[in-house]
Amino acid sequence: MFEPQDPNRIQLNSQGQLRHFLTTEGLSRELLTEILDTADSFIDMGAKQIKKVPLLRGRTVVNLFFEASTRTLSTFELAAKRLSADVLNLNISTSSTSKGETLKDTLMTLEAMHSDMFVVRHADSGAAHFIASQVTPEVAVINAGDGRHAHPTQAMLDMLTIRRHKGAFEPLKVAIVGDILHSRVARSQIHALRTLGAAEIRVIAPKTLLPRHIEAMGVKVFTDMKTGLDDVDVIMMLRLQKERMNSALLPSESEFYKLYGMTTEKLAYASPDAVVMHPGPINRGVEIESAIADGPRSLILDQVTNGIAVRMAVMSMAMSGQMVEKQKHSVQAQ
Amino acid sequence: MFEPQDPNRIQLNSQGQLRHFLTTEGLSRELLTEILDTADSFIDMGAKQIKKVPLLRGRTVVNLFFEASTRTLSTFELAAKRLSADVLNLNISTSSTSKGETLKDTLMTLEAMHSDMFVVRHADSGAAHFIASQVTPEVAVINAGDGRHAHPTQAMLDMLTIRRHKGAFEPLKVAIVGDILHSRVARSQIHALRTLGAAEIRVIAPKTLLPRHIEAMGVKVFTDMKTGLDDVDVIMMLRLQKERMNSALLPSESEFYKLYGMTTEKLAYASPDAVVMHPGPINRGVEIESAIADGPRSLILDQVTNGIAVRMAVMSMAMSGQMVEKQKHSVQAQ
Amino acid sequence: MFEPQDPNRIQLNSQGQLRHFLTTEGLSRELLTEILDTADSFIDMGAKQIKKVPLLRGRTVVNLFFEASTRTLSTFELAAKRLSADVLNLNISTSSTSKGETLKDTLMTLEAMHSDMFVVRHADSGAAHFIASQVTPEVAVINAGDGRHAHPTQAMLDMLTIRRHKGAFEPLKVAIVGDILHSRVARSQIHALRTLGAAEIRVIAPKTLLPRHIEAMGVKVFTDMKTGLDDVDVIMMLRLQKERMNSALLPSESEFYKLYGMTTEKLAYASPDAVVMHPGPINRGVEIESAIADGPRSLILDQVTNGIAVRMAVMSMAMSGQMVEKQKHSVQAQ
Repeated sequence: MFEPQDPNRIQLNSQGQLRHFLTTEGLSRELLTEILDTADSFIDMGAKQIKKVPLLRGRTVVNLFFEASTRTLSTFELAAKRLSADVLNLNISTSSTSKGETLKDTLMTLEAMHSDMFVVRHADSGAAHFIASQVTPEVAVINAGDGRHAHPTQAMLDMLTIRRHKGAFEPLKVAIVGDILHSRVARSQIHALRTLGAAEIRVIAPKTLLPRHIEAMGVKVFTDMKTGLDDVDVIMMLRLQKERMNSALLPSESEFYKLYGMTTEKLAYASPDAVVMHPGPINRGVEIESAIADGPRSLILDQVTNGIAVRMAVMSMAMSGQMVEKQKHSVQAQ
Repeated sequence: MFEPQDPNRIQLNSQGQLRHFLTTEGLSRELLTEILDTADSFIDMGAKQIKKVPLLRGRTVVNLFFEASTRTLSTFELAAKRLSADVLNLNISTSSTSKGETLKDTLMTLEAMHSDMFVVRHADSGAAHFIASQVTPEVAVINAGDGRHAHPTQAMLDMLTIRRHKGAFEPLKVAIVGDILHSRVARSQIHALRTLGAAEIRVIAPKTLLPRHIEAMGVKVFTDMKTGLDDVDVIMMLRLQKERMNSALLPSESEFYKLYGMTTEKLAYASPDAVVMHPGPINRGVEIESAIADGPRSLILDQVTNGIAVRMAVMSMAMSGQMVEKQKHSVQAQ
Repeated sequence: MFEPQDPNRIQLNSQGQLRHFLTTEGLSRELLTEILDTADSFIDMGAKQIKKVPLLRGRTVVNLFFEASTRTLSTFELAAKRLSADVLNLNISTSSTSKGETLKDTLMTLEAMHSDMFVVRHADSGAAHFIASQVTPEVAVINAGDGRHAHPTQAMLDMLTIRRHKGAFEPLKVAIVGDILHSRVARSQIHALRTLGAAEIRVIAPKTLLPRHIEAMGVKVFTDMKTGLDDVDVIMMLRLQKERMNSALLPSESEFYKLYGMTTEKLAYASPDAVVMHPGPINRGVEIESAIADGPRSLILDQVTNGIAVRMAVMSMAMSGQMVEKQKHSVQAQ
């Protein structure tokens, strides 16, 4: 539906600062590291009694969800409120479009209400880029997941979780397991891991759930867990996107679990101190065994905690970068 | 369903200040001008980084929507939050009434929760007046649209938009175009334009979409655009209220567009510096041509911006007028 | 579904302070009195212009409603906002469970987001206890109604209403009227009234709406209003829980009203200064005559006002008790 533009051009301002956050693709190692450092500073705050900072006070953040996602919406809503923003939740699929208004008109209307940020979730790949290409310099756009394309805040919370547990990316062998074909998360993770310098990135999936030419992204491809997990340090499980899958691609949940589900038996193939991650919500007994999900090597709940911090980080950074851009425009207009 | 009472008696307090905002009908030129002046002061604030004032801090504003309207609800929610109020959104059609509670009981319950303001949207004409006649002196009522009767904040944001672009009302010829019959907006606009002293007010519509005796409101009636738009300074388009129309009244959208849609060709009938307004959401190619909607003479997005400011103005003025009334009552009670 | 645990053990911290608020059962007279005293201090605040205190500023309160209830949700939402908390409303029946996530995973995820309080509404008896038994020391749980088991904030707002109108509990004869069998409210009221020392507690209901062995709770049982209301000081009507009743138990609304509805005629059986209460929303002409509901002896709207104050009280007390517990845990962990 939408044609993604060059992400580097659109998501950075003229000083090279983050202005929108649409994809991890093409962002520099310095910028990704800045996001992780900023998020680190918010993590300690989450454990405090008063979990608020006034960085977005008086700002209006609009959660523009064209696709329902309670969990992602909740994390962005909490992140925005902890930055002291005013939050407006709009479920667009059930609202203005039913009155026949176009997407562009919806955006212009929200801009005219002096919105400062759109957090966009959409079933179509490229939707967040399209919206970022349409908005005025007043508005920063955060991609909360678009079709099969990207889910960059999920990827960055995964990077933060890895860094906090493993220290550095350079020595790491990382395996991404599951439905690579339909996963915006996998794409965003691969871009981020490459940029941050992970030693080796592997994908493990049945052939039917692997995109063609995935090797071109710089990953090693495996179709079985025994060889794929051999000696890896980090295992990133994916959700089975049942709603996105043609049943022909996947015979049964139990068969998938037997071959690719994360179990104690399969975890033994990996490095002895390998950690296991999953973006949640988890399907126990389908993607992951409960003993692993609840065990000492699971980082699943750390990922949730880190997700709030990463969202606060990119929201505050993008707002800052958008202010610089806006001031430039207002100077040019004089 | 509801019998509107004398609006002057009910919406002003004993000092003649706004206490509820139910209709533009019967309000003095001084009071309408005070609303516009107050709104003007909020417009500059909207462009600032911190868009908040503490005028309603600690106050509870309840958006009481008996009829769904995402756009109107969003503008009132943002206006209330920028005044620092606590906001409670209640979609009454899907909640307490299903448990058999009467409207009066719902209102008394919300009052007992120490609500300070009800923003009311209802499909029945007179609903906001009825509610204002029932509430205690503690509560101010704002009409966010009631049936075919009134939509006063829409009319006032239109007046603000006209004044900011044309300066004064006295020299202006203004045409209101479209479905006059079903339009609460048109009624509220006509009352406001007359009170503010517009030189000439015209309505342009097919006969089937004109109320009987509309001339009695002090307007000139036209059924064709060529003569109706001749020499006008301001063109106010209306939405086609499809959901309110019997199909017998309107043969087809394309026929309506041909005769009454705002196009470049028809705009040429008007004054060379005529501006075009529309309450939104717009139906491109049905009510208005995209070249007009997006062109330099369109004020559609200014209307949205001004809508937040006008809502902040009437909310803060009504709350102030209600406090004066409440203090009077508490003195009398001693 | 859930097995309630000993409430004394779970809802108090090691200093005997409220840490969760799950049931009135087993709480001491001192603690119930402390809740009422704390709520009293919030009541005057409700009438002020600025109805906010910073007791929960920077805290995250999650309204976790597995069963819809607009009124109860609204009162908890307002109470949390007036304590300056950030509020997240989750309607769980329509969200994450549809993605197959277990309740335990939902809770752990919300904890990992650094939620401070869960306000839980659930159709199953014991759900709030189960959740309280699962959460980390970081989180306080408030029961907003679970199945037929308990609705303790409703009971405490009733106690507050009685105390504010009658002064002391010791001399009072109190009658609870209606569907005792299905009422979580009745159970919570009986526990609270006994603990606070009411002289006599009666239940009045048709045999089909009385639980077996209800006398064991220390109440006198009546099946007709004339003898049951004789000389009572407080009459507490219950809602007909139509959705919870098998039609075989209750022949018709009009028959129920004739026998057990609160009318002027039946009120004459009670003490001359008896007051009438009802948790709302009321069914006029089914449970209560309008002349009574709107009359001088009705305390129905006081109950609503007191409901906000009681919820603010238990939320702030539980948060305080949870902090003490959390500090103890963090000391032990060192």
